[in-house]
Amino acid sequence: MNVIIDLCIVPLGVGVSVSKYVVECHNIINAAGLKSSLHAYGTNIEGEWNLVFDTVKKCHERIHEMGAPRITTTIKLGTRIDREQTMDDKIKSVKEKLSSQ
Amino acid sequence: MNVIIDLCIVPLGVGVSVSKYVVECHNIINAAGLKSSLHAYGTNIEGEWNLVFDTVKKCHERIHEMGAPRITTTIKLGTRIDREQTMDDKIKSVKEKLSSQ
Amino acid sequence: MNVIIDLCIVPLGVGVSVSKYVVECHNIINAAGLKSSLHAYGTNIEGEWNLVFDTVKKCHERIHEMGAPRITTTIKLGTRIDREQTMDDKIKSVKEKLSSQ
Amino acid sequence: MNVIIDLCIVPLGVGVSVSKYVVECHNIINAAGLKSSLHAYGTNIEGEWNLVFDTVKKCHERIHEMGAPRITTTIKLGTRIDREQTMDDKIKSVKEKLSSQ
Repeated sequence: MNVIIDLCIVPLGVGVSVSKYVVECHNIINAAGLKSSLHAYGTNIEGEWNLVFDTVKKCHERIHEMGAPRITTTIKLGTRIDREQTMDDKIKSVKEKLSSQ
Repeated sequence: MNVIIDLCIVPLGVGVSVSKYVVECHNIINAAGLKSSLHAYGTNIEGEWNLVFDTVKKCHERIHEMGAPRITTTIKLGTRIDREQTMDDKIKSVKEKLSSQ
Repeated sequence: MNVIIDLCIVPLGVGVSVSKYVVECHNIINAAGLKSSLHAYGTNIEGEWNLVFDTVKKCHERIHEMGAPRITTTIKLGTRIDREQTMDDKIKSVKEKLSSQ
Repeated sequence: MNVIIDLCIVPLGVGVSVSKYVVECHNIINAAGLKSSLHAYGTNIEGEWNLVFDTVKKCHERIHEMGAPRITTTIKLGTRIDREQTMDDKIKSVKEKLSSQ
């Protein structure tokens, strides 16, 4: 089963700057061979369910190793069985409607 | 690694009533032996990471089998390595501070 | 317009313990006269849209005053116009189906 | 108080395709003069707190007018008082660290 997720990992107890943890997660996601796209409040990832969630787990494990005692994460995730749809398809679908207004 | 999650699964394309899907997920969570607690906007679950996320996957698979072509889910999830903390501990910590005001 | 929300406010830069901030928000929500219910990963609140979001804003302002330089919050929110539904109605709807299985 | 949010509005009871509702929200956000950026699982918006949440409310009202009986929305929102930070700043901070690896 394919899944598209929006991942926002927030380490606690390590101050207010979280970008170095985002970078580390970015590397883990890339190493897993997953397609991803960074935005200002998270990272979109698409791929096979198990690989995606194993990767999220690796991000948590790595951020704890980096010294964060606590992590709180928000994930939105979508699956569909009526048809295949990529992250690009989702954006394209909106942009086409916007340009034809 | 233990995790506490807040799970909110929303089937799309099946009308506005979602309680029968929540019930089905409740049964799947119970069958997995996971501790859970229902609230008005989701279900809290605690347990070992892999078991928890395998269970979330089973919920998605089951809801698709029930006829929902598309599902969008929001999950909050927390891990910590400084100490063990259950869902009950989290609530107790707030309630103690509330009662001692 | 009435709204039911699930509110999870996370102060950053103030260590790993967040319960004292949750307590403060609880007091602000109560002072606003809003109905709320605490769970292990947030607080459910129901009420008129403007009052609810003014209250969320007051929580952010207060937590900054308490010393948190940065806050990240996750909110789920639901509105419906087909019928009135309270937080209690939502839980009751699931519990009735659970007990009649 | 400035806020950066990630907005994901999901109308229920209107089938599986939600792009026309996303387009309508996009127009409302633009008409409010707010800076926004679309991604595959939501829209990032930055601006003054009251204007941002008035706009979210207008999106809900409009989607109900378009025929959706029920809406469930997920919002992540961040405020900080230690320094000003835009959506672009957040992405730039990560991209600089990525490119210097």
